[in-house]
Amino acid sequence: MHRYRSHTCAGLREADVGTSVRLSGWVNRVRDHGGLLFIDLRDHYGLTQIVVDPDSGGFATAERLRSEWVVRVDGQVKARSPETVNARLATGMVEVFATEIEVLSEARELPLPIFGEPDYPEDVRLKYRFLDLRRETLHANIVKRTQIIAAMRREMTGAGFAEYTTPILTASSPEGARDFLVPSRIHPGTFYALPQAPQQYKQLLMVAGFDRYFQIAPCFRDEDPRADRLPGEFYQLDLEMSFVTQDDVWNTMTPVMTRIFEEFAEGKPVTQDWPRIPYDEAIRKYGSDKPDLRNPIVMQPVTEHFAGSGFKVFANMIASNPGVEVWAIPARTGGSRAFCDRMNSWAQGQGQPGLGYIFWRKEGEALEGAGPLAKNIGPERTDAIRAQLGLGDGDACFFVAGEPSKFYKFAGEARTRAGEELNLVDRDRFECCWIVDFPFFEYNEDEKRIDFAHNPFSMPQGGMAALESQDPLTIKAFQYDAVCNGFEIASGSIRNQSPELMVKAFEMVGLSQADVEDRFGGMYRAFQYGAPPHGGCAFGIDRVVMLLCGAKNLREITLFPMNQQAFDLLMNAPSPATPTQLRELGIRVAVPPKA
Amino acid sequence: MHRYRSHTCAGLREADVGTSVRLSGWVNRVRDHGGLLFIDLRDHYGLTQIVVDPDSGGFATAERLRSEWVVRVDGQVKARSPETVNARLATGMVEVFATEIEVLSEARELPLPIFGEPDYPEDVRLKYRFLDLRRETLHANIVKRTQIIAAMRREMTGAGFAEYTTPILTASSPEGARDFLVPSRIHPGTFYALPQAPQQYKQLLMVAGFDRYFQIAPCFRDEDPRADRLPGEFYQLDLEMSFVTQDDVWNTMTPVMTRIFEEFAEGKPVTQDWPRIPYDEAIRKYGSDKPDLRNPIVMQPVTEHFAGSGFKVFANMIASNPGVEVWAIPARTGGSRAFCDRMNSWAQGQGQPGLGYIFWRKEGEALEGAGPLAKNIGPERTDAIRAQLGLGDGDACFFVAGEPSKFYKFAGEARTRAGEELNLVDRDRFECCWIVDFPFFEYNEDEKRIDFAHNPFSMPQGGMAALESQDPLTIKAFQYDAVCNGFEIASGSIRNQSPELMVKAFEMVGLSQADVEDRFGGMYRAFQYGAPPHGGCAFGIDRVVMLLCGAKNLREITLFPMNQQAFDLLMNAPSPATPTQLRELGIRVAVPPKA
Repeated sequence: MHRYRSHTCAGLREADVGTSVRLSGWVNRVRDHGGLLFIDLRDHYGLTQIVVDPDSGGFATAERLRSEWVVRVDGQVKARSPETVNARLATGMVEVFATEIEVLSEARELPLPIFGEPDYPEDVRLKYRFLDLRRETLHANIVKRTQIIAAMRREMTGAGFAEYTTPILTASSPEGARDFLVPSRIHPGTFYALPQAPQQYKQLLMVAGFDRYFQIAPCFRDEDPRADRLPGEFYQLDLEMSFVTQDDVWNTMTPVMTRIFEEFAEGKPVTQDWPRIPYDEAIRKYGSDKPDLRNPIVMQPVTEHFAGSGFKVFANMIASNPGVEVWAIPARTGGSRAFCDRMNSWAQGQGQPGLGYIFWRKEGEALEGAGPLAKNIGPERTDAIRAQLGLGDGDACFFVAGEPSKFYKFAGEARTRAGEELNLVDRDRFECCWIVDFPFFEYNEDEKRIDFAHNPFSMPQGGMAALESQDPLTIKAFQYDAVCNGFEIASGSIRNQSPELMVKAFEMVGLSQADVEDRFGGMYRAFQYGAPPHGGCAFGIDRVVMLLCGAKNLREITLFPMNQQAFDLLMNAPSPATPTQLRELGIRVAVPPKA
Repeated sequence: MHRYRSHTCAGLREADVGTSVRLSGWVNRVRDHGGLLFIDLRDHYGLTQIVVDPDSGGFATAERLRSEWVVRVDGQVKARSPETVNARLATGMVEVFATEIEVLSEARELPLPIFGEPDYPEDVRLKYRFLDLRRETLHANIVKRTQIIAAMRREMTGAGFAEYTTPILTASSPEGARDFLVPSRIHPGTFYALPQAPQQYKQLLMVAGFDRYFQIAPCFRDEDPRADRLPGEFYQLDLEMSFVTQDDVWNTMTPVMTRIFEEFAEGKPVTQDWPRIPYDEAIRKYGSDKPDLRNPIVMQPVTEHFAGSGFKVFANMIASNPGVEVWAIPARTGGSRAFCDRMNSWAQGQGQPGLGYIFWRKEGEALEGAGPLAKNIGPERTDAIRAQLGLGDGDACFFVAGEPSKFYKFAGEARTRAGEELNLVDRDRFECCWIVDFPFFEYNEDEKRIDFAHNPFSMPQGGMAALESQDPLTIKAFQYDAVCNGFEIASGSIRNQSPELMVKAFEMVGLSQADVEDRFGGMYRAFQYGAPPHGGCAFGIDRVVMLLCGAKNLREITLFPMNQQAFDLLMNAPSPATPTQLRELGIRVAVPPKA
């Protein structure tokens, strides 16, 4: 028989009754039923119940066992009596009567309970991560994470992609966030950088004549602690294709990601044909470029109904500025004064003057619009608004007015709030879409000039002609995001592979050809030697895993995370370097004294 | 029709004759056959011949084309005439008569020719890596590399393993080589380190109750330039299993790796059942713990034949020191004075006094041993040696004498030399084996004390009893390597998961429990809380890919390598940091002036 096990702790079934087996695992729990000891033995695969009676050879050992000791158990498989069968356990029809128990490793007093996984302070969980990871939920999340990533690899390979690994020790690249630097010992005084993303490398791969690249890519950004991002490293499903339009990227990745979501959605519906929503439309309908489409609320402009109306606040705004619009946020089933007042108070808490509303109720046979706005604009306009929005008895509508660029975010938040408060959001589904046609430039208020809205790698729609003659702020890019349930899960674009277009675009944001060469030298140089049209995107793996695990915190889906202060409590990193290390690297520590 | 292509450049066949198609790719070559232009159009997938005649709409454009321009070609598929069919090309039965050509991207004068891939200086190849990668051999090597790694993932998954990703920003770990350090901005004056290997993390995963871990793991060692290792990063197929003996590791990985080798060996035979050769036996038979088993030479001790013999040099050594042995290196077909003298000269070139030999030839009916040694020891001993080694007419044998620990390396080199010179090595096969039972300790001559022979993580055979009572230098570890064609391709062990044994082993090399905690704190702590028996190994991916590609240089199988001076000529890294970066990290550059 094998030294440690004939079966895993998930392996035994009724058919094994009567056989001699050997199991190894952790003591999940010991119960003493009047001299008879019941041990739940646990390994990576499952649980098996061990029974030890006082006549058994293993009894003396069994009496010593404590939680989380590692043991080998030899014994006989017996059927459980019908009333003790555990249907929730794969091995629940049987139990093993121990004949011999060997302690393979003892465990000290646990700093962190495993069984039942009660809440516990996070610093203890992180310091004793090897115990934390034995807890059922976290263990299952990590297993699911490995399965999701394996499925990504399988699906990408099935779609004709190959995985290429790009360097981790590379050059500093000014992509927005801070780089982590790595001092060079062989060239003291100089530094490598860890990649914020393999953006330049994947584009170079396309220029090098490869096609359909993907990578489960580690990315590194030295950012200040943020709730929605782990310090240090994160993972992207990064991909790039040659000789493609943006439709090819969407047509390729929609079925890939839909299959992955479906495989791990545990029966929840997943969008089959992801709608492609232009950025401008997303802003107008949902007040966000990351709309949660599980929320059925779709905003509509209702400016005309307020123009020249008796609601002077809006009417005057509209009259004095042609850029002013009024947007309606329809809220089915929200038609009570209590709810509308709650929304109004919430808006004031957000720093808004308030949130105008109308709600409709039956007065006898007639539908009546209620609330101050309805009174001010009169029944005809009130009903026109109701009709436009398709609302009825018991429904409400909220209104925001002004220049859309200034209020759309708040309008989007009001939409989210109303949908959630009214339970209009179906949480048990995955609603995915592509947001497309992002603006190429944006206005930088601080510096009073235009700037790249996303990244300088994207191809502007309309090409050189657009850059030369169109109002820059109206130029769109072949730039898109994928969104699921209100979270951005991917971002991508068709790339600008023309050196001339690149220089022109940089000029428009006040940078020179020398800046292009300085910042993206490898890529700019490559584009001079035959660059294919290409594009792609990158999916945020951690976010996808969080959605599919239903986890609220990145540390619940990550093996060995640092804490929020970028400290690794398990391995005790970062830590001081030795004088020899510093000398070899040609650096000195020069920490200013704390104020 | 698609904007860029209806088919790839490898897609067209005879069945497509008569259809209108669109292709995009690079101009691999243009030939002018009396006004008719032939363009080999190349993409990632293959080549297609384009024909442009002066009446074609694309002719004016075609005349401008230069190598490596990127173009879109519309045209008609025609069958080639029988005498122009190219059987070596998947599309070789057809050609495309161009009706329209669009230039998608021009290329400047090439700094590096692609077509025909002539030898070129490596610094140019690395600076213009995006061009170098278009060359046929390198492009194919990289594709093969991606396929080998994909096969590893497939085989490991098939063997019940899951891929877990371990942190890249972690703690400094004293595993032999230098760490790359990463200054922390949030904790200025302290440093993360890049992992030399995920050794501690994979063991922590086992303690955390996972099982059958693998990872295509990036590893980082800041080593001085070495021909057989790229500076910076390299990849391992890293794996670990719980509740296993070393036989389980070998039984699991032998079929996995055999299948991978066979898949990419292009018909060359691969060892099916890898022999397990104890370290001591490998040293005695092959003079190496990385024996090339394609070389049929097996050494044997022949001490007794020289003891008390007329060859006084050996006889006196044997008489004066019981540790002295004489090893024979049999060399079939090497039986000529010219060859034996060549070997002798080679040995002198290696700093040896010479290399004694005997060779056998037929004299009439009799087999006669020739050479000075044969004369000294006489015909009876000469023939006893011949009989022991199974040699005959036309064969030779070389002899080395002394303490085996001092001469075995040279004996191994002589074995290699003889095998190669005599063409006894069958180069067209992959001969794999496990070398097992490595010594746990070794004697450190410099410091006059014992030291760990490999790593302190391994389990000593015999456990605590062996450590307490056995001569340390005779203790073996459950430590093994995998070897293919003379190269170490993997190393692994069953781990020492007992805290007491770990402390005892460290004590024996002069280190304290505090040293254990200081160096391997996370792991040592983990072992206190229920650690399963576990073990594994790590295969060197770069080495396996080199063997399977038949490449001589790591840069021929790596996408974006640095040069031998650890400089990335493509991305221009490492490079100076900005004053802001340094200030934020709390470090200063302090490079001593060059002497």
